[in-house]
Amino acid sequence: MTERASDEEVGLLEGLATTRAIRRYREQPVSDEDLAAVLWAATRAPSGSNRQPFRFVVLRDGPGAVEAKSILGRSFRAAWAEKVEADGYRQGSGGAGSSPKARMAESMQQFVDRFERTPVVVLACVGRRRAGDLSEGASVYPACQNLLLAARARGLGGVMTMWHRAVDAELHQVLAIPDDVVIAATIPLGHPEGGHGPVRRRPVGELVYEDRWEGPAPWALDPPGTRFTSAGPPKGG
Amino acid sequence: MTERASDEEVGLLEGLATTRAIRRYREQPVSDEDLAAVLWAATRAPSGSNRQPFRFVVLRDGPGAVEAKSILGRSFRAAWAEKVEADGYRQGSGGAGSSPKARMAESMQQFVDRFERTPVVVLACVGRRRAGDLSEGASVYPACQNLLLAARARGLGGVMTMWHRAVDAELHQVLAIPDDVVIAATIPLGHPEGGHGPVRRRPVGELVYEDRWEGPAPWALDPPGTRFTSAGPPKGG
Repeated sequence: MTERASDEEVGLLEGLATTRAIRRYREQPVSDEDLAAVLWAATRAPSGSNRQPFRFVVLRDGPGAVEAKSILGRSFRAAWAEKVEADGYRQGSGGAGSSPKARMAESMQQFVDRFERTPVVVLACVGRRRAGDLSEGASVYPACQNLLLAARARGLGGVMTMWHRAVDAELHQVLAIPDDVVIAATIPLGHPEGGHGPVRRRPVGELVYEDRWEGPAPWALDPPGTRFTSAGPPKGG
Repeated sequence: MTERASDEEVGLLEGLATTRAIRRYREQPVSDEDLAAVLWAATRAPSGSNRQPFRFVVLRDGPGAVEAKSILGRSFRAAWAEKVEADGYRQGSGGAGSSPKARMAESMQQFVDRFERTPVVVLACVGRRRAGDLSEGASVYPACQNLLLAARARGLGGVMTMWHRAVDAELHQVLAIPDDVVIAATIPLGHPEGGHGPVRRRPVGELVYEDRWEGPAPWALDPPGTRFTSAGPPKGG
């Protein structure tokens, strides 16, 4: 699980375990070659009957991109401000400078403040077949996950967000997205300022059952070195 | 893109490009170690605010599994029979023994006929927050994709299906799945009878736009050796 010297060497299982949300990007632009590799890998994902209803609108520096990033930046800042209020990021441990919550808040604030300077923003879209059906997502979100994994393989980082929702109609208009196409996710991408590394999740035994709902799966063990969210067992436990 | 001798060596980008739907499984059971690795990797996926609303019910040989597989087998056979009628799998090239369509039909028929003998069936579930919202899928389908990719890394194969839908209520009852939990996908898994290999998709330029809807992205090129679906350019073109 340690960082590799060369991005080319990341193994499949290691990549799955160490692709985390990246929200701080260097100014360095993303090359055409990297973008091509990342988008190509995204489109290798499965979809219902291999119909491939996913489409990716890539925003860099063009006129559409500048306008859309500005609209998105406004929406992201409003969404984050709302979350700060709702989730009490200014109270308790959120106010302390070095707590995980405070560091998360600082990183989020920088992410939304600098949104317009995000090197690449990808809008993952999907042609609508069944309105409002959960399973519609099965034909676009696997491709989004492939995109994020491929980004990690190429030394890039990104995060899947839904903060386009408040400005969905504006984005449709500015980017000429048809009415029957849904923006399923907004994915900022760039060269990470920090590093990748093991993600934090709940213990796998809380998420995996056998034979029935809440049926124990004693084989479902976290490998040594797994890092847990605060929802997991206490540190050192 | 050639097959590797050892499954351990699959690289991240290669894994993304060569994880295809596997519907034919050997009788060989899936080991606890493989299952643990695959489910653990699935749970590394991102979800909204890292809330991890995904839960996986793993069906092998227990009483719940036997009953659920029987219910699912019935549903899968009915769904396939319907598709054979609707999509004309018995007419034209579907009737010819060696056409891609006929081979696909044969593989699907075997898949549903043998469904009860599928070594592992995973039900990917998600706790309901916003009913009927596409973005709900963003917190479960990335985990399903991780699961399929990890399966490929461990020498297993599987496929994401929605053919549980007609028997959703029965499955909830038999497996004691709460009413506010949705079955988002049914994922059969096993040791593949055939091999993995490059997937077939539409040319990437049809799926990726820049700066606006249908804006050309000249950098979005398929690497040499990419295999296309019939929706792509003619062979040799």
